[in-house]
Amino acid sequence: MNPFDPVAWQRFESVLAKVPPGETCAVAVSGGVDSVVLLDLLRRFLDRPLLVLHLNHQLRGDAAVADAEFVRELAVAQDCGFECRSVDVAALAEDGRCSIESAGRNARREFYATVCEDRGIGHVWLGHHADDQAETLLWNLLRGSGVEGLSGMSDCTPMPDGGPLLMRPMLGFWRSEILTYAEERGLKFREDPSNADSTFMRNRLRHVLIPQMEELLGRPVKQNLVQAAEILSAENEVLRSAADAAVPEVEAELQVEALVHLPTAIQRRILRRWLEQCGIAGCGFRHIEAVRSLLEVRAGESAKVNLPGDHYARRRSGVLFLE
Amino acid sequence: MNPFDPVAWQRFESVLAKVPPGETCAVAVSGGVDSVVLLDLLRRFLDRPLLVLHLNHQLRGDAAVADAEFVRELAVAQDCGFECRSVDVAALAEDGRCSIESAGRNARREFYATVCEDRGIGHVWLGHHADDQAETLLWNLLRGSGVEGLSGMSDCTPMPDGGPLLMRPMLGFWRSEILTYAEERGLKFREDPSNADSTFMRNRLRHVLIPQMEELLGRPVKQNLVQAAEILSAENEVLRSAADAAVPEVEAELQVEALVHLPTAIQRRILRRWLEQCGIAGCGFRHIEAVRSLLEVRAGESAKVNLPGDHYARRRSGVLFLE
Repeated sequence: MNPFDPVAWQRFESVLAKVPPGETCAVAVSGGVDSVVLLDLLRRFLDRPLLVLHLNHQLRGDAAVADAEFVRELAVAQDCGFECRSVDVAALAEDGRCSIESAGRNARREFYATVCEDRGIGHVWLGHHADDQAETLLWNLLRGSGVEGLSGMSDCTPMPDGGPLLMRPMLGFWRSEILTYAEERGLKFREDPSNADSTFMRNRLRHVLIPQMEELLGRPVKQNLVQAAEILSAENEVLRSAADAAVPEVEAELQVEALVHLPTAIQRRILRRWLEQCGIAGCGFRHIEAVRSLLEVRAGESAKVNLPGDHYARRRSGVLFLE
Repeated sequence: MNPFDPVAWQRFESVLAKVPPGETCAVAVSGGVDSVVLLDLLRRFLDRPLLVLHLNHQLRGDAAVADAEFVRELAVAQDCGFECRSVDVAALAEDGRCSIESAGRNARREFYATVCEDRGIGHVWLGHHADDQAETLLWNLLRGSGVEGLSGMSDCTPMPDGGPLLMRPMLGFWRSEILTYAEERGLKFREDPSNADSTFMRNRLRHVLIPQMEELLGRPVKQNLVQAAEILSAENEVLRSAADAAVPEVEAELQVEALVHLPTAIQRRILRRWLEQCGIAGCGFRHIEAVRSLLEVRAGESAKVNLPGDHYARRRSGVLFLE
């Protein structure tokens, strides 16, 4: 009656054990099979009060309203609290000049952070699984998402600014195992209520590209992608700590002297964090490298670099600053 | 008359500038277009005496003998020294239970190291380019090659045990640019004299998989793979240094106390180096993770892990050792 791999199940249990007894947790439920199974598993194996969170992305019209109602009924049936919000994600994407996918992620994270702050909740459970991990790594690699995108999702990720911890106990479970579990338990769920853009690309990776790769190479690749994500995720933690230790507080100005002797990889991470925290959106690897070249400017060379949104990075008197 | 991207050309020149004046260098020439172009570029832009190295992998019979003769004549025409060796790579692969590809790489590296030690040479120039970088990263990712395989090749890599530096000045050049250069300069070269196994898989990636990906995603991916390799290569250096600093000398026994408080990523790297240096070949990620689990063994649990080739790792009295 337990279709999951024993090692992955052990991992599931060890993630659940991280929450102190008696503490109320939030769980993100879209209504799709992954989050419905997550909720079912948490009700069975996590002895904590649960608050179900559901975000309507306003991308699927009436179907989205039906999704929300389905999740509300599920929460009631499972004896959980329920909180729902509706956000025009397409408009957010247009305003922020970003993809629907990343606007959706930002909207969900803001929703989780606000609710958790209001209610003093420290943990949000998410239904990401091994197929998500493999597809996300491959997609981030192919679209060139840079440093952070190359690392996998972690079991437990802190949200910035002291927000809740994002808990992903199902990262070791395969989608096929989750479907088997749902069937064996007779669970009802909604088809694909995740956001359309993400689903579109995910479906192409899942149903076309990954099978093509496996056929061409004559071997399975999903497991290897998940392994790579696991390796890179642990390495990411070390590098993030090293960058934080080198420049603990990001200010409006950066001292060249504090950066110039650091390894390239750490310089990149510090500069990326600096640009982000100073509100320069949309910087890619090329922008980071351009700003990094300011560290090595020689006399007579230009000390100004163009950034997205008509911003500039400049170097003057041993200091980097933004305009 | 210079078909290369200006930024990549700058990088080429800066790698060349790393060699002290007057020092003799070695250059690896298979006879294929990449290494023929490399030799031509070095003769034009690197004012140093050159020794051409050529390894016959014994995988292509008479064609390989003709390759070696072609490269010898080229070396003479370019006023370079020439040194050739012949190795039965297929037999090495069978003996070492590894792929033809990795047996070939080991044989080449041993050849470079021996010649360079005999002749007091500190730098070996290699013809790897941007397409190699992209294909290598993708291939390593898909076949699950673990930590080191996920990082790209570097401009300048030290060989172990104080061997020569491997110099790759063409990592920023695309194969198409190299072909254009060869044509414009009227250079002659041999078709595909690289080893058959590698070529086989490389061709599938180059001609089938990468174009399929680009069509499916509606965007170029090679550039993104190269960018990822560059990011991961710099991060790899930081992590390798951190692992070396944590356990500077690898001995036959490892103290649990020295490892147990280190980050997971650093533990993995130290254990991988330990297994390698103790001669346990063929360890994958699962083996490393199994050995790593010995760090957390509780009383009453088994403190023995099976490794390839009938070896074992054991923990006793706070020490890890191999049998």
